[in-house]
Amino acid sequence: VIDCVAMTLTSPRYIGVDVGGTKTLSVLVELPPHGGHPIVLDRELLPSRADSDEAVGMIVQAVTALMERAATVPAAIGVGLAGFVDRHGIVRSAPNTPGLVGMDVAGELGLRFDLPTLVDNDANCAAVAAHRVVARDVDSLVAVTLGTGIGGGVVLDGRLLRGANGFAGEPGHMVIDPDGPECPCGQRGCWETFASGTGLGRLAREAVVAGRAPNVLAAAGSVEAVQGEHVTDLLHTGDDGALEVFARFAGYVALGIANLILLLDPEAVVISGGLSAHGELLEHLVGAELDTRFATSVRHRNVKILVGPGGPESGAIGAAILGAHRQAG
Amino acid sequence: VIDCVAMTLTSPRYIGVDVGGTKTLSVLVELPPHGGHPIVLDRELLPSRADSDEAVGMIVQAVTALMERAATVPAAIGVGLAGFVDRHGIVRSAPNTPGLVGMDVAGELGLRFDLPTLVDNDANCAAVAAHRVVARDVDSLVAVTLGTGIGGGVVLDGRLLRGANGFAGEPGHMVIDPDGPECPCGQRGCWETFASGTGLGRLAREAVVAGRAPNVLAAAGSVEAVQGEHVTDLLHTGDDGALEVFARFAGYVALGIANLILLLDPEAVVISGGLSAHGELLEHLVGAELDTRFATSVRHRNVKILVGPGGPESGAIGAAILGAHRQAG
Repeated sequence: VIDCVAMTLTSPRYIGVDVGGTKTLSVLVELPPHGGHPIVLDRELLPSRADSDEAVGMIVQAVTALMERAATVPAAIGVGLAGFVDRHGIVRSAPNTPGLVGMDVAGELGLRFDLPTLVDNDANCAAVAAHRVVARDVDSLVAVTLGTGIGGGVVLDGRLLRGANGFAGEPGHMVIDPDGPECPCGQRGCWETFASGTGLGRLAREAVVAGRAPNVLAAAGSVEAVQGEHVTDLLHTGDDGALEVFARFAGYVALGIANLILLLDPEAVVISGGLSAHGELLEHLVGAELDTRFATSVRHRNVKILVGPGGPESGAIGAAILGAHRQAG
Repeated sequence: VIDCVAMTLTSPRYIGVDVGGTKTLSVLVELPPHGGHPIVLDRELLPSRADSDEAVGMIVQAVTALMERAATVPAAIGVGLAGFVDRHGIVRSAPNTPGLVGMDVAGELGLRFDLPTLVDNDANCAAVAAHRVVARDVDSLVAVTLGTGIGGGVVLDGRLLRGANGFAGEPGHMVIDPDGPECPCGQRGCWETFASGTGLGRLAREAVVAGRAPNVLAAAGSVEAVQGEHVTDLLHTGDDGALEVFARFAGYVALGIANLILLLDPEAVVISGGLSAHGELLEHLVGAELDTRFATSVRHRNVKILVGPGGPESGAIGAAILGAHRQAG
């Protein structure tokens, strides 16, 4: 009993919320001192909502549920979402939760719960979680989240790089082919038109049209219906067409990562997000591509490439860690 | 007389050496305290040498000449060169001075003169000079040097970003077109195959072959002889063909800069190097391209684009400033 009390006193608890495209995962986390491994004590999964009141309401509902079940008040709350949050805490873009744009979500939640609260980009959360959970021995890393788009977060000298406006580390719209596919952002050939889930789907449709992935077409039913999942679902069967598409996709992942390495010279690159579920294969393909095609640009660097090490709760854990940073200072 | 003595006591002097492709410029610089504007007291211009002994000998000759003429011993020496210098001070690549690869040039010079000495990438020197001389009011900037290739240096929170291996901030081999021209590095479509002096020459030859730049062809004599200079020499005449080529070149400069802004979110981007001599035109073209084509990726950012503000001595001045950092730290 004494041990339990001591642990409660020395390891404060935080709530981290990861607002995803369809679901919002909230966790109650104990953060042991001296950078110890976070311990998830409880979790709450709710649907995400686009409307501003409903989106905030869903976060309030999750935080309240976690607090009531644990009969505890966390030391701080952190929220991660897809999009840009500026240095003043105002959400400036939020593709999954457009209703939150222009809002000071942290301010609203902070008033509601009377607790230090921070809202940040979800890839920044993933970067901080990766640094604490899987890459504690490095001072610098780049975290890349491959989902519907591509998010990014950069840790340098152990600290999250925020940039002049709070928008640093967003490589999804890095142009890697000026004549490439149109991106919803208005540019052509952004990295995420190739190396995201959306990009994988496009590469798959190209292969299907060229007759190179018949089983992908069979699984989807029609060219128009082909998605990235039809490729990833077939990978374990060793299907040649699916493997070829995935290898091409991995080549684009490697290209963007090589660009990031050139600019930031990190000790590690951590890939997370939905597509990192195929971690071993992706790690192998990306590593091989970096060793050959990008040999010159990444030589002498010995950068570690880690795919999907954090697990599906790492975004929410990272949000909790950023909440702790907010509380500390 | 008293003022002079006081200034000498409070403003230590440094020697900065900028080893260029053909010439080595060395300066004796006074660095006033509290980040004051550097004062160049004397300069020495010598040819660059590729051979290791001759290259080091030329630096020794320049430093000795500056010391003898001023009858002074500097507080430290800084040397900038094109290439990579690792965290241990070993030159790992040096296209202009290949004889220096593998050498601890700073160690040799330090022993020779018994002074704190540092050798660093020339674009890092340009970044530090830009931060002190033209962008003192910003905490973060990216410096891009457009010469035969493209160099880069990144200042974040007022400090030079070095990276895990000392190689951070090297955007020249960032791939911006996977099907682009072959680069001597072995990749295709590196930024510097488009946006360097070499790239400008290639774009000019393409325009000449397409019959779009007859006066550039006339100036060069033959397609094979066309270089970037044939374009820049014609700019002041308002030649349509030269302007079209330069605008296309500026578009590629802007594309890479947009990518850097996405990743680093700096307050300012400083463009220096030989091509920045056409500063006003380049600044206008790059700014316009960023405002339109890259509007989404750089929106909300208000980043300052400064072209060629440092002048031709900024690399050597930056080397002196880095020497001062070395002495201090």
